Amino acid sequence: MKSVVLLSGGIDSSTTALIAKNEGYEIYALSFNYNQRHLIELEYAKRVAAFLEVKRHLIIDFDMRDIGGSALTTDMEVPKNKSSLEQIPVTYVPARNTIFLSFALAWAEVLGVWDIFIGANAIDYSGYPDCRPEYLRAFTEMANLATKASVQGQGKFNIKAPLLYLSKSEIIKKGLSLGMDYSITWSCYDPQFKDGKTYQCSICDSCLFREKGFKEAMLKN
Amino acid sequence: MKSVVLLSGGIDSSTTALIAKNEGYEIYALSFNYNQRHLIELEYAKRVAAFLEVKRHLIIDFDMRDIGGSALTTDMEVPKNKSSLEQIPVTYVPARNTIFLSFALAWAEVLGVWDIFIGANAIDYSGYPDCRPEYLRAFTEMANLATKASVQGQGKFNIKAPLLYLSKSEIIKKGLSLGMDYSITWSCYDPQFKDGKTYQCSICDSCLFREKGFKEAMLKN
Repeated sequence: MKSVVLLSGGIDSSTTALIAKNEGYEIYALSFNYNQRHLIELEYAKRVAAFLEVKRHLIIDFDMRDIGGSALTTDMEVPKNKSSLEQIPVTYVPARNTIFLSFALAWAEVLGVWDIFIGANAIDYSGYPDCRPEYLRAFTEMANLATKASVQGQGKFNIKAPLLYLSKSEIIKKGLSLGMDYSITWSCYDPQFKDGKTYQCSICDSCLFREKGFKEAMLKN
Repeated sequence: MKSVVLLSGGIDSSTTALIAKNEGYEIYALSFNYNQRHLIELEYAKRVAAFLEVKRHLIIDFDMRDIGGSALTTDMEVPKNKSSLEQIPVTYVPARNTIFLSFALAWAEVLGVWDIFIGANAIDYSGYPDCRPEYLRAFTEMANLATKASVQGQGKFNIKAPLLYLSKSEIIKKGLSLGMDYSITWSCYDPQFKDGKTYQCSICDSCLFREKGFKEAMLKN
């Protein structure tokens, strides 16, 4: 049984990949170099792919800076120390999951794969619309009308989001119970560079969610 | 009034762009270098963009050869002289319109544009599932759940396909009535190279549909 898994190198997608593996799936991991500010996440995605012994790890390149509109793809400042998110923050990347899932759908169709895993989460998240269950349902419906394999009746695509209703600490506990090593994952949106090394900023949304998750799980990050 | 228009450089997308312009839209044209066999179409897309005096022409690059599965992105042979298409041909590119529309959606959101034009046609076409009205409706529904702008109630995205129910000859007649110059468009899937020049093969599906369209319109191609 094969699956395509979207893998950013963060906690959620890495845990999702591990869950898929644990369910017996062969993993075709898919990552993207979209010229994101935290391009370093791809180095972690590669480590996770190696750790999970994926069947193949494909990285697709395109430049989202041409489109812009996000603090992750422009010089716009990444918000810091926001303990509560009243609105969707500027780290939102327009249509990002739709673009990612579209490539995943293309690859799945070519591989003869029906199950696509995504680490979308609608609990400890930044309120991005393309992480919500109603979005994932609509994408699935569209996907099954979009593709030769599905309209010819060979099968039906499923978008699987096993973390959708878990808190960050539940995700971490789940991953650890399956043997995940979170030291090979990366969360920070705004990496800091010093003395030739890269550090997490510790105060962007993504760092704060990571810290909160480990704290609530009563574990050291 | 602004619109994002998917522009391949072929008859359908060029006519669609002209229709949008004629309706008073400012055109943001979007093309893709996905390492397609007929990459030359982009040179024609540029000519059409200039002809229509578009506001901006963005070309996004990514490599669909890594995904494969199509005669347009692999060494698979392009079918020739097929006068009737009994099934979806191997020139189908998995999830292509879904990927294209996803990028269009991202760009539209950043530009504050609600109308996205696509030259999809479900009459004189190769049976590609992602050209059908039910697919376009499902994409629209998904798009409005995917994006910050729409879920915040700023508006609703529309996918506009003005050619959906026109035959190729009706499309050509429509374009000509609006002043289109089809000599700056390209249709052939399998360009032939000779003496440093590029020629259309004249016998792939896309050439045959082009020829049929001009013939039925009683015009010289």
